[in-house]
Amino acid sequence: MNSFMALLESRWNDGYFLCVGLDPDYDKLPAKFKQESVSDAIFHFNREIIEATAPYCGAFKPNTAFYEGYGLDGLEALIKTNRFIREQYPMHPIILDAKRADIGNTNAGYVKAAFEVLHAHAITVHPYLGKEAMAPFLAEKDRGVLVLCHTSNPGAGEFQELKINGEEFYRVVAAKVSREWNGNGNCGLVTGATYPKQLAEIRKIAGDLPLLIPGIGAQGGALHQTVTHGLNSAGEVIIINASRSIIYASTGDDFAAAAATEAARLAAEIRQIRTRAAESHPN
Amino acid sequence: MNSFMALLESRWNDGYFLCVGLDPDYDKLPAKFKQESVSDAIFHFNREIIEATAPYCGAFKPNTAFYEGYGLDGLEALIKTNRFIREQYPMHPIILDAKRADIGNTNAGYVKAAFEVLHAHAITVHPYLGKEAMAPFLAEKDRGVLVLCHTSNPGAGEFQELKINGEEFYRVVAAKVSREWNGNGNCGLVTGATYPKQLAEIRKIAGDLPLLIPGIGAQGGALHQTVTHGLNSAGEVIIINASRSIIYASTGDDFAAAAATEAARLAAEIRQIRTRAAESHPN
Repeated sequence: MNSFMALLESRWNDGYFLCVGLDPDYDKLPAKFKQESVSDAIFHFNREIIEATAPYCGAFKPNTAFYEGYGLDGLEALIKTNRFIREQYPMHPIILDAKRADIGNTNAGYVKAAFEVLHAHAITVHPYLGKEAMAPFLAEKDRGVLVLCHTSNPGAGEFQELKINGEEFYRVVAAKVSREWNGNGNCGLVTGATYPKQLAEIRKIAGDLPLLIPGIGAQGGALHQTVTHGLNSAGEVIIINASRSIIYASTGDDFAAAAATEAARLAAEIRQIRTRAAESHPN
Repeated sequence: MNSFMALLESRWNDGYFLCVGLDPDYDKLPAKFKQESVSDAIFHFNREIIEATAPYCGAFKPNTAFYEGYGLDGLEALIKTNRFIREQYPMHPIILDAKRADIGNTNAGYVKAAFEVLHAHAITVHPYLGKEAMAPFLAEKDRGVLVLCHTSNPGAGEFQELKINGEEFYRVVAAKVSREWNGNGNCGLVTGATYPKQLAEIRKIAGDLPLLIPGIGAQGGALHQTVTHGLNSAGEVIIINASRSIIYASTGDDFAAAAATEAARLAAEIRQIRTRAAESHPN
């Protein structure tokens, strides 16, 4: 199996920096799916979104919250969705946005769920319990461990911007993860596009660590700053996620075509910003 | 429906402070379950543990990691387990130890999963994203929201003991949750028995907030300090969890009887420590 980092590297080399968030809401699905079971409806919706957007994106990111709310149906839809990506788009890594973290021996269950049951290539996690607790995740050399650093929500600063010896907490997380947690070279950080200044700070601290960046589109993060602040000196290592703005670009029967159009537009815009940034700051 | 806090209050009034952690590991189940499906085996094991220990405990705490590793079978077993507790032991609250937390609109999915799919009375959550993100949980007035404060693992201090203006991060979490997050009176804190000094600090800061305390038994936390440091001035508001030391007290056919014996022993010891503490520090 290709490791998460090898797959990402390959996607970046081909110019793909967009990630499509697979966050299905049954109530918002186009009418045609409503005759199917909840599990089939969600899976078939995802399948059309994946087929429509795969040519324009580098990765897919299902968020577990959007599946767990539907119980067994939701889990079945998520299993089928990931299996479909694995079979049909083996070069597109699956980032399971699960935001998990428990104490050491307990995390083994989450590792099994994410990587054996759901066949994800990477998972998002909370930093709060520290490196020692996260050993079962970090030991998975071929899988990505993307640690929450500065989140995209309006109230993110309540704890994340408190100062420790003059340094904001999110910067301490960025430093620890990039310098102490990354022994297997499989770590990344999650940082919201809605905080461009903090994103630039995180890039400075984290060197070449991959950054998963949610918050453009529906959440309002500006794409230009997101790309220019997120890129490393080689013009790489960013995964820019959009969910709602792509998957609900239309709620009519043309939803897949509309998703493709929006994904293509975003991917082209990212590419253009990257090219201009490279021209103004040549290596 | 009785609220989580009302159920807890009623259990405390009756003298029950022990919580039994339902963390099944298929590989450790007694041989007689191995002829059943994984889902049935886990559920039937849990059912016997619940029946055996219900007379001695105040609550049950299934940790989702131990179910998610088994995919659909695990989720089915968890759904059946919680339904069984709801039907047979309606005065025993179910604490879903899921350690979730995402941004606001996404948490709605976890709320639905915890309280509609799994019918839990309370859930454990990470503090990292702040109060604003946790609004969908906090708005559930009848359900408990137990926020990780000082966890029981050896490396808990990596972030939790960093100092913000001279005050450790876990103390800041305790203060914010008890003073700012608890508008609906449905918050509690999770603090590990393996850190008795910090447990005493948290009790001082958090007033009468319920504390869920894992880490006695297999993890090595001392019961006497846990009880005396955890109780509030009224001699209440602690939920002391034991998982492995009860559910695997025996791995033979006598596992349920052994679990009952261990739960009864722990419950009696907690009661004794409480009584002595009340005698030496009368209100």
